[in-house]
Amino acid sequence: MKVNGVAWRSIAEDGPHAVRIVDQTKLPYTFATLRLDSCDAVAHAIRTMQVRGAPLIGVAAAYGVALALQRDPSDASLGTTQVQLAATRPTAVNLRCALARMTALLAPLPAAERAWAAWREAGRIADEDVAINRALGSHGAALIAAVFRRVQRPVSVLTHCNAGWLATVDYGTALSAIYQAHDGGVPVHVWVDETRPRNQGLLTAWELAAHGVPHTFIADNAGGHLMQRGEVDLALVGADRVSRGGDVCNKIGTYLKALAAHDNGVPFYAAVPSPTIDWTLGDALREIPIEERAADEVRVVSGRDDAGRPASVAIADDTTPVANPAFDVTPARLVTGIVTERGVARPGELATLLAATRAAA
Amino acid sequence: MKVNGVAWRSIAEDGPHAVRIVDQTKLPYTFATLRLDSCDAVAHAIRTMQVRGAPLIGVAAAYGVALALQRDPSDASLGTTQVQLAATRPTAVNLRCALARMTALLAPLPAAERAWAAWREAGRIADEDVAINRALGSHGAALIAAVFRRVQRPVSVLTHCNAGWLATVDYGTALSAIYQAHDGGVPVHVWVDETRPRNQGLLTAWELAAHGVPHTFIADNAGGHLMQRGEVDLALVGADRVSRGGDVCNKIGTYLKALAAHDNGVPFYAAVPSPTIDWTLGDALREIPIEERAADEVRVVSGRDDAGRPASVAIADDTTPVANPAFDVTPARLVTGIVTERGVARPGELATLLAATRAAA
Repeated sequence: MKVNGVAWRSIAEDGPHAVRIVDQTKLPYTFATLRLDSCDAVAHAIRTMQVRGAPLIGVAAAYGVALALQRDPSDASLGTTQVQLAATRPTAVNLRCALARMTALLAPLPAAERAWAAWREAGRIADEDVAINRALGSHGAALIAAVFRRVQRPVSVLTHCNAGWLATVDYGTALSAIYQAHDGGVPVHVWVDETRPRNQGLLTAWELAAHGVPHTFIADNAGGHLMQRGEVDLALVGADRVSRGGDVCNKIGTYLKALAAHDNGVPFYAAVPSPTIDWTLGDALREIPIEERAADEVRVVSGRDDAGRPASVAIADDTTPVANPAFDVTPARLVTGIVTERGVARPGELATLLAATRAAA
Repeated sequence: MKVNGVAWRSIAEDGPHAVRIVDQTKLPYTFATLRLDSCDAVAHAIRTMQVRGAPLIGVAAAYGVALALQRDPSDASLGTTQVQLAATRPTAVNLRCALARMTALLAPLPAAERAWAAWREAGRIADEDVAINRALGSHGAALIAAVFRRVQRPVSVLTHCNAGWLATVDYGTALSAIYQAHDGGVPVHVWVDETRPRNQGLLTAWELAAHGVPHTFIADNAGGHLMQRGEVDLALVGADRVSRGGDVCNKIGTYLKALAAHDNGVPFYAAVPSPTIDWTLGDALREIPIEERAADEVRVVSGRDDAGRPASVAIADDTTPVANPAFDVTPARLVTGIVTERGVARPGELATLLAATRAAA
């Protein structure tokens, strides 16, 4: 998508020995890029959320493998790299998938061929992500357009966290649908959840503003009230992992919005590339490890001071006990549909829709 | 309750012509008090939330009337004062009740007797609040103790916003129950919702820490997940207004927690002094005006800088559109019970429990 009229991807090759990322910890205040030329740098970027979003961290990890193998293409290096990168974020399935795909491709190759093959494969994963998100966005846009035909006024969509182009290589997942509806002439307004503690809603607001999509930023607490008042037509989120039965694991707080949507008859959709679906996963609530992140994410809030400089404030001190679970699970019974690159399925019909994809996985 | 071993009320008479309040906009960073010697100063304190909490703003408003009448006890002054104070916060019923009670008492009196009568009546309202909250807390503590007898481990209570002694004259409502359970030897742990945008959860954490009650501060998004994982035994909140059928109007986000409690079989209680029940109110969702507060409450976050000085950061700039509804309504069907000074009632049995009170109102 474009920033100040220039087309960007959230991650792109920068010569044959490095990738360039948008540093998402600096947004929405500063648009800055970072050059990563080692696997350590990639692992650091994933852990500190300089790159974030389930699809994007899968791609970043694939490039991390390639960069590691450029330095040392041995079996030991391949093994260490896989472990190092898998440990950065435990919940997202894309990361695990991308690493498994890289290992399956690379392990049988002679060491001398690995670096080049890894680099090419990481590029393929990135390009596939773009194609998938463009496709799933068109299916999501059709849902929004259908609401517009019925209500004949701007369609209000509530979203949580950032499922935009910053979370993927390009287009985004939930926001891909919104961009394509907007670009197709369907009037859309987006309620943007703040998404404490890390406030990824600011990334969403920044993306939407850059693309000219009308939106309103709200505290996470407000969404239920807005649904009660009939001010939300559709809830549309991304996901970090989806079970084969359609349980949606996404940023903490998603479950609360799904409950409110269900209570108020508001359709609730998750937009996900098919690699986000974990066919090994039965009961997501029991089986998914939920990442517990640092207490300081809750205690410290970053923004800008009066002079517009980056600044942080501690809202609570180190003596305040904090818990910070990063994700929750929305059971399939609360999910109206899963939007994928092959179309929209009810949670129970995911396997049928994606039979071909699943067979290939 | 005590602060550093000294007993405080959130509002107290400071000589015959002023009241002293705890400045809640300075907490939890600084414990500071403010002397208010005019109705204008009281109105300002309510509007800017130097005093906040439904019961406390009722008491503050009563003192505001008294201070106004000390300067001008005329009918015109009484009328103007009522209008000025009623406009400070539109949602809380206690404010409206306290003003109605003052006017009913004062209007028939000769002007010369009004100031003294108003001062005495404000003091009575304050003392009644303390007695009511002590009583309702004992009923709430019994609920917590009953859970403890069943589970035989510390009882985890989730609360939202601040329903502590800072929100009342003393004891609090939801926290009165927790303090009395704790003081009675029942092990309690409190999950403290941050309560964006104004982060009143910090006041709750401060109160609980000062009293030695174990607690954990969490983002508003986390509560549903904790309930799914069986880590919440009881949800207990205050309220700004309760309908005769038991709909609970409370700080924005309460409805989301009630939905999660209902979905996970966690009992959900609101603890309220009977004056918080609005017997004129049928369908709260339709009939209660929901205060829309300033966008900057969402855009700007206050805390302390690295040197421990008060500081603020803007997380979003002025160009970001913001909505900031301050309250939501939890329908009675999601409420297990209402804890009052006369005992605990199911929402549909409030009128029976409080028949005597209601007749007197």
